Amino acid sequence: MSKRILCVGAAVLDTIFRVRALPSGEGKILPYEMVQVAEGMASSAAYAIVRLGGSATLLGSVGDDDTGRRICDDLAQAGIDTSAMSVVAGAPSALSTILVDDRGDRLIVPFYDTRLHHTIPQISDEMIAGFDAVLVDVRWAKLAREVLRAARRAGIPAILDGDVAPSETLLSLAEIADHIIFSEPAARSLTEARAQADLVQELAERFPQAMVCVTFGPAGAFWMEGTQLHHQPALQVRAVDTLAAGDAFHGAYALAVAEGLGTADAVRLGSVTAALKCTVFGGRTGMPLRIEADKALQQLPSSSVLRP
Amino acid sequence: MSKRILCVGAAVLDTIFRVRALPSGEGKILPYEMVQVAEGMASSAAYAIVRLGGSATLLGSVGDDDTGRRICDDLAQAGIDTSAMSVVAGAPSALSTILVDDRGDRLIVPFYDTRLHHTIPQISDEMIAGFDAVLVDVRWAKLAREVLRAARRAGIPAILDGDVAPSETLLSLAEIADHIIFSEPAARSLTEARAQADLVQELAERFPQAMVCVTFGPAGAFWMEGTQLHHQPALQVRAVDTLAAGDAFHGAYALAVAEGLGTADAVRLGSVTAALKCTVFGGRTGMPLRIEADKALQQLPSSSVLRP
Repeated sequence: MSKRILCVGAAVLDTIFRVRALPSGEGKILPYEMVQVAEGMASSAAYAIVRLGGSATLLGSVGDDDTGRRICDDLAQAGIDTSAMSVVAGAPSALSTILVDDRGDRLIVPFYDTRLHHTIPQISDEMIAGFDAVLVDVRWAKLAREVLRAARRAGIPAILDGDVAPSETLLSLAEIADHIIFSEPAARSLTEARAQADLVQELAERFPQAMVCVTFGPAGAFWMEGTQLHHQPALQVRAVDTLAAGDAFHGAYALAVAEGLGTADAVRLGSVTAALKCTVFGGRTGMPLRIEADKALQQLPSSSVLRP
Repeated sequence: MSKRILCVGAAVLDTIFRVRALPSGEGKILPYEMVQVAEGMASSAAYAIVRLGGSATLLGSVGDDDTGRRICDDLAQAGIDTSAMSVVAGAPSALSTILVDDRGDRLIVPFYDTRLHHTIPQISDEMIAGFDAVLVDVRWAKLAREVLRAARRAGIPAILDGDVAPSETLLSLAEIADHIIFSEPAARSLTEARAQADLVQELAERFPQAMVCVTFGPAGAFWMEGTQLHHQPALQVRAVDTLAAGDAFHGAYALAVAEGLGTADAVRLGSVTAALKCTVFGGRTGMPLRIEADKALQQLPSSSVLRP
């Protein structure tokens, strides 16, 4: 039976424009392709889980408007359980515009009305105990903290997607999680260390209760477990669209952990899922199937122990 | 009774993000305000006409989708007659993202599917003769040419919003119109002349059948009638959002001409309408009422004859 993951956080209608080059300053820039897709950190991770054969329930918040209905419909059609989504009257749903250039680089302009996340739904320990793992992002921090705490009480993996956010938000979540996967910019916002290995080690010492991992895109992922620092090289691919690559990593990692895999194997599944996603234009829609990820795992270099 | 203007061309759902500064390259940029509004060159001009007390009918094309219904609803609620809009099955409606910075400068990312404008609706001379003027933009050039020709046959003003477009498109429209208002970038795309006065004079000689005007934002408008070159200084305002300022000018000019005003007075109404629009954030929604435009006209410097 497929493992059940609860994903908490971002749900937004993205308009993705494909352009030759990212803009600089005033003017008009003509995209040659456009898609609209409901996604966001937790939503895209949920979709990665579904594509890899897991089951994903999303807790996010939308406004009581056309965009909100479209977000929920789109995610439900993608196979994500959206029955517990919050609908807030009087707040506009989140939307963002993303420009992706011919090198796969992206410019993101996200807009979230703060009213979407003022209140939180009731979370019971029984509800959380019905899942095999929880994965939260930084977007709905108040709810994410409750869910992480409930997951710890229930003894299931409490995983944090540590992306860029105000430091007090990021710290308040990282102190509770028992698995933290930081993006490079978020990791750099918390420490002074410059070398990748030092950065990871410093963060791991700061959050001793957790497995701490930092993803560096094509430079791979570094993680620390106990006193050992590991490096997993990335699968080398031609990047077309790096949007939602981090979310692919987090979703795959969470599913692997829920399935009982060890950290090294979970990081490996995260790595190939993220790399394969980058080869397809269209944000989260490029998530690979499990059979594709398994095949790519055979090409993935082994991880190595860097320290001690 | 209010004058009736037929506006032909762009109809798009704009998402306008207000940002501190326009982006440069990759990353994430956080807007502090967001609005969505149906607009576009002809649509925004139509709204200027309505706000100034005229009557505007819009001929534009949308897809058979949620965005298309939203565009038509939004424009109809704004008081524009949208009963003749075309709906194309299987094509996505046009949408664009606009970033406006704290200086009022803007970056536009428009997306139009070419299928929206493949075919054109039937235009009869009787239909066109029911209007007091027509105003066309460059977006649906095939239809714009038919409408300009019919307006010339009907003896009503045939006005072109000469904005940036492939030169053959722009030229094919400019050759038919009897009033042409070029934006500065479009005017510069057609001539080598550098000084503003030379630019206008050269274009006027190229389109001898038409009143030719070029708008230069805060540097005012230059136009040529017969052998006289005129300059109308702009009203000096603190610009908050220059989006749709050109459209404000075109709509006001068209209404004034339909009302029987001379070119100088029509340019004056266009100038103040554009300037007032720039003082309000939110694209076309900032169009002034006639009473506001009339008041501003009293502050507007007189025009002067530059040549001969």
